[in-house]
Amino acid sequence: MSKVEPVVVIHGGAWAIPEKICDASRNGVKLAARKAYEIVKSGGSALDAVEAAVILLENEPVFDAGKGSCLNAAGEIEMDASIMDGTSLKAGAIAAVTNINNPISLARMVMEKTDHCLLVGEGANMFAKECNVPSVDPSTLITEDCLEEWKTFQKYKSAVDSLINSLTIGHDTVGAVVMDCNGRIAAATSTGGITGKRVGRVGDSPLIGTGTFAIDEIGGVSCTGHGESIIKICLAKHVICLMENGMNAQNAVEQSLQFMNSRVKGAGGAICISASGEAAFHFTTERMAWAIAKANVLSWGLDPNEHNTEMMS
Amino acid sequence: MSKVEPVVVIHGGAWAIPEKICDASRNGVKLAARKAYEIVKSGGSALDAVEAAVILLENEPVFDAGKGSCLNAAGEIEMDASIMDGTSLKAGAIAAVTNINNPISLARMVMEKTDHCLLVGEGANMFAKECNVPSVDPSTLITEDCLEEWKTFQKYKSAVDSLINSLTIGHDTVGAVVMDCNGRIAAATSTGGITGKRVGRVGDSPLIGTGTFAIDEIGGVSCTGHGESIIKICLAKHVICLMENGMNAQNAVEQSLQFMNSRVKGAGGAICISASGEAAFHFTTERMAWAIAKANVLSWGLDPNEHNTEMMS
Repeated sequence: MSKVEPVVVIHGGAWAIPEKICDASRNGVKLAARKAYEIVKSGGSALDAVEAAVILLENEPVFDAGKGSCLNAAGEIEMDASIMDGTSLKAGAIAAVTNINNPISLARMVMEKTDHCLLVGEGANMFAKECNVPSVDPSTLITEDCLEEWKTFQKYKSAVDSLINSLTIGHDTVGAVVMDCNGRIAAATSTGGITGKRVGRVGDSPLIGTGTFAIDEIGGVSCTGHGESIIKICLAKHVICLMENGMNAQNAVEQSLQFMNSRVKGAGGAICISASGEAAFHFTTERMAWAIAKANVLSWGLDPNEHNTEMMS
Repeated sequence: MSKVEPVVVIHGGAWAIPEKICDASRNGVKLAARKAYEIVKSGGSALDAVEAAVILLENEPVFDAGKGSCLNAAGEIEMDASIMDGTSLKAGAIAAVTNINNPISLARMVMEKTDHCLLVGEGANMFAKECNVPSVDPSTLITEDCLEEWKTFQKYKSAVDSLINSLTIGHDTVGAVVMDCNGRIAAATSTGGITGKRVGRVGDSPLIGTGTFAIDEIGGVSCTGHGESIIKICLAKHVICLMENGMNAQNAVEQSLQFMNSRVKGAGGAICISASGEAAFHFTTERMAWAIAKANVLSWGLDPNEHNTEMMS
C-alpha cells in the first residue's frame, strides 16, 4: 500500500555539452529515470532505485562516470562515487578507484559492509577485491572521445588557464535522487572527474554533504559542475540548510547555485527532492541533461528552458 | 593598525583521553594557542596562524596527527588534513598520505599551488615530491603507544564491536580556528584517523564542510570525534548554517553535536569562532583538550567543566 507518491530526479552532468552527444545524453537520463521509477512504483526502496539508475548512467559511455570517464594528467581513469540513505543517514563513498565497472555499487558496499563512509585509492581497490567485485582492465573503460579530449588537454596544458577553460574539456558526473513509496529519500552521484586532473584529485562527487546528501526530514540532493567550487561552498548541504529554513526545493537549488557563482565564481547544477515530494533542478552551465519521473509523467530537457513531457504508463 | 581583536581556538581531539597523557595534551594545546596568537597579534594572517598551530600539534606525539598517528588495519600510518581560508573560500586537503612530517603544510600547498582542493593517496605523495616536501621513513612517525594500541586492536578485532568500543582505542585529531586583526578567519584540521581503520579509510578531517570550514561572513569551525558520524551530518557546515540563521557560536556547536548524537548516535567535539569574534567549543565525549587565546588571556581545559585561565603578556 503506497503511502507516498514516488518521485525520481536524474542528472547527466552540468557542462557545455557538445551538440553531437546531446540526444544520447537526453536518452540516457530518460532511461535512468524510467528504471528508477519502475523500481519505486513496484515497492522498491529509494536506495535500490538510485543505485540502479546510476549503474545505467555509468554503463552509458556518453556520461563521465564508469565507462566513458575522463582521463587524468597521467592518462588514467580514477573514479569517484557516493550514495546516501536519508532514513539512517548511512553513507558510502569511494574515490580514486581505477578498475571496476560500477563505482556506485562499491560505494554502497562501503556503506553496508564496513564501519566507514569513504575509502580511497589502493584501499578501495583492496575492499573491492574482498567483496569479489570483478576487477576490469582499465583500458576497457576508456572511450575514443575521452582519449581525444585528453590529447587536446596534453596539447594545451602548458597554455594559460583561460585557454584551457575556453575549450569544452572535462565533462561531468551523473546523479540520482529518489523518494520511494514510504517517503524514504536516497541520493547517489558518480563521476570520472575532469580531464587532465592531477593523479589522486578528488572532486565533490564522493563527498557526503558536498556532492551528495539525503535526509528524509528535509530532502535529497545530487550536484554536478566545477567540483572545487562545489567543495568550497559545500553545495549539497547548503541546499539542505536553505530547505531546513523553509525554502522550497526549486528556490533552494537556484539560490545555492547563485551563491556559488557570486562567492567563488563557479558554475554547476543540482537536482533535489524535498520531504514533501517537490522535484527541482537548476544549472548555471550552458547545459545539463535532466529527467524527472512523477505521477506517471516523464519530463526531461538539456538546453535552458527545454522542457519535454510524455506519459509513462 | 589592528581593526579587530584577534581570537584563537585550538583542540587536541575529543575522546576518552587516558589519565597519563592529560597533562601533555593540556600543554600541547596551550603551546599551539600561544603560537597562533603571537602570529596574529604581530599582524600575521589567520592562515599562517592555523598552519603554525597545527604543525606544533602534529609534531607533538601525544596527539593523533603527524608523529603519533594511529595505525591502520595493516599497521601503517595514513594521515589526513585540511585547511581553509574564510576570505577566498580557497581550501586544500590531503588524505591517506603516508610519509611526510606535516600533512597540514601539504594541504596548504594543494590550496595554493594546484587548481584542486583534495588530493589522496599516491597522487598526494607525488604532489609532495613535486613540491620538494621531504619524504620520511613512516616508521619515524610511529610511537610506542600507538603500536601498543594497534596490538590491542589486533587482539580484539575479531570480538564484537561493543568490546572494541569499550576500549579506549583510537584517539583523535587536532584542529585550529583563528580570526586575525583584519577579521579574516581560517580553520585547519589534521589527523591520523582511528586505530585499525581499513586501508584507504578517510574520515571527516580532510573534508571541507565536514571536518573544517571557514567563511569570513559567518565563522570558522574545526571538528573532532567519530569521523563517520561527523560525515553523516556534515558537522562543520551544520554549525555554520545555524550561525547563518542568527544562532551564536556556542549554541550552534552545542546544538549541532546534540543533533549528531540524537540522529546518528555519534560523539565528538567542535571549536568555532563567529564573525563577531565569539570563541566557542563543546564536546560530547569524555574529554577534549582545548585552548582559547583572546584579549591577552589564555583559557584551557580538558575535563568537562574544567576551565583555567592565565594572562599572556
